[in-house]
Amino acid sequence: MNCGVTRFEGEVLLLLRVAEIPINDNPDVVSTIMYNAAKGDIEIINFDKNREDVNFADPRFVESPEIRILTSISHLRLARSKEGIHFDIEEEPAMFPANKYEEFGIEDPRITLIDDTYYINYSAIAPLGVTTCLATTKDFKRFERKGVIFTPDNKDIAIFPEKIKGKYWAFNRPASAEYKRREMWISQSSNLEEWGNHQLLLEVNQSDWDNGRIGCSSPPFLIDEGWLEIYHAADDNDRYCLGALLLDRNDPTRVLAKSARPIMEPVASYERWGFYGPVIFNCGCLFEDGIVKLYYGAADTSVAYAEIRMEDILAELEWVK
Amino acid sequence: MNCGVTRFEGEVLLLLRVAEIPINDNPDVVSTIMYNAAKGDIEIINFDKNREDVNFADPRFVESPEIRILTSISHLRLARSKEGIHFDIEEEPAMFPANKYEEFGIEDPRITLIDDTYYINYSAIAPLGVTTCLATTKDFKRFERKGVIFTPDNKDIAIFPEKIKGKYWAFNRPASAEYKRREMWISQSSNLEEWGNHQLLLEVNQSDWDNGRIGCSSPPFLIDEGWLEIYHAADDNDRYCLGALLLDRNDPTRVLAKSARPIMEPVASYERWGFYGPVIFNCGCLFEDGIVKLYYGAADTSVAYAEIRMEDILAELEWVK
Repeated sequence: MNCGVTRFEGEVLLLLRVAEIPINDNPDVVSTIMYNAAKGDIEIINFDKNREDVNFADPRFVESPEIRILTSISHLRLARSKEGIHFDIEEEPAMFPANKYEEFGIEDPRITLIDDTYYINYSAIAPLGVTTCLATTKDFKRFERKGVIFTPDNKDIAIFPEKIKGKYWAFNRPASAEYKRREMWISQSSNLEEWGNHQLLLEVNQSDWDNGRIGCSSPPFLIDEGWLEIYHAADDNDRYCLGALLLDRNDPTRVLAKSARPIMEPVASYERWGFYGPVIFNCGCLFEDGIVKLYYGAADTSVAYAEIRMEDILAELEWVK
Repeated sequence: MNCGVTRFEGEVLLLLRVAEIPINDNPDVVSTIMYNAAKGDIEIINFDKNREDVNFADPRFVESPEIRILTSISHLRLARSKEGIHFDIEEEPAMFPANKYEEFGIEDPRITLIDDTYYINYSAIAPLGVTTCLATTKDFKRFERKGVIFTPDNKDIAIFPEKIKGKYWAFNRPASAEYKRREMWISQSSNLEEWGNHQLLLEVNQSDWDNGRIGCSSPPFLIDEGWLEIYHAADDNDRYCLGALLLDRNDPTRVLAKSARPIMEPVASYERWGFYGPVIFNCGCLFEDGIVKLYYGAADTSVAYAEIRMEDILAELEWVK
């Protein structure tokens, strides 16, 4: 689906979101899958395709009067590469759904290195709602779960790599059930596990590419001009693009500039057609030698790679009045 | 609508949620009202009653294709009493909507005294979503806003009056946009402004009175048996009752017992009929001499008073296996 990325012990390391779908030979049913936390086991639930009270329109989930349940279940898996292009994918999951907050899967990992610890946040999907959880690792072998850091529904969290004004900071994207808003917020923390001082950072725009929902993509990184964030935006047809955002170095609640048009759009065939497209969805990048190296999900199917020069990103930015 | 309550300088002090509705002499329009933060002023927006694309079914709000907007705007106002029955209501608001998080009003205040500071949390309603904000006071004259402590949509927060296991604790009730859940969660904090380790505490029940949504009512208080919480539950017809919950004294994430049936239901005429009923909605109580003194909202119209003996509450509790 997509991946977080970091450098670790001389290698490029991807933490992949891998979605698994049940094998189904019966054309009359749609299969769904979940981790049943009470039983401690995977459960497959089939829905009769002829049921008129069940919505099968979206390939990602089934909605019946009783339950909204996903057709796939995601876990996180590591892939390693010396040069960042050819990857060896590990046989076993790094992290697999393991509790009641993760029953429909763990998704969209983002990695932030702070001191000698890698902080991994991921969306935890469950019948009780969509939360974001935190885990830490120092070796990418042992992962320590730190629990739910944002209440339902909140996903698309990315943690800044250093303190600003004495606090840690993170983007997040709460979903308002009452007011149907899905926008970028920013929050602060003293200890990375408890978050507050939540502030709306960036609203959806009236332009054609970011009028549906917006959220962060990669964890932000520092350049001379301030904090650079690659974020995602979807239009009201659910077409996902990437934009760029520049925030004040000393006050990340202040948006200095943003790209008026997408810096990247789904145009390649593998970005337009797949499990769900047209989608470019990014959870991590490397910024090296003036180049942003984007590892991103294409059409919720493959992980793809793109390079963008920082000077080209900066040329797209328009300063906010 | 309802109120928080505390004792202060020998008096019983209510912090009332007061909802104001625009004067409207035109039978052809429905008036709505908001605080426009950009303009710094109140704004009245009228909707033509004949518009077929606008939903007027709920007296509390109007829903058009462009906006969901409230028909009233709430502020917080103080009332004082020597004996707790006859109150003098102040002429001026204690707190009035003042920023973009509060444009549709501030609602449902709850007061927790910790050391010498009164912590007041309230729902902040705005087009950007339903958040919960925190304010503090020591004298009920000057109120200091501490910002948003829970992201959209989250309301029905109540803060415990002391640390447990070295942390502060609070109930909250996130609304899941995707999974339509509205249940009681519990979260911890080191400093009362940043919250984490969010855990689902109590799910809606299959019984007839608490199968819709549940959330806390009063801030919890300690009795010999553990933490006693008066909570609210609504059935799927939006009829609001009160229940009781007992939590482990040393681990408030552990539910020890709950009332199988409501400890209080809307039966009086003023609880059944009003701006919105049948509703009993409680945000605060005093526990004195073995008696719980409930100040509560009746049918979203009046503030009413009831007394319940703790022994009667305890007799209703069923222990959780």
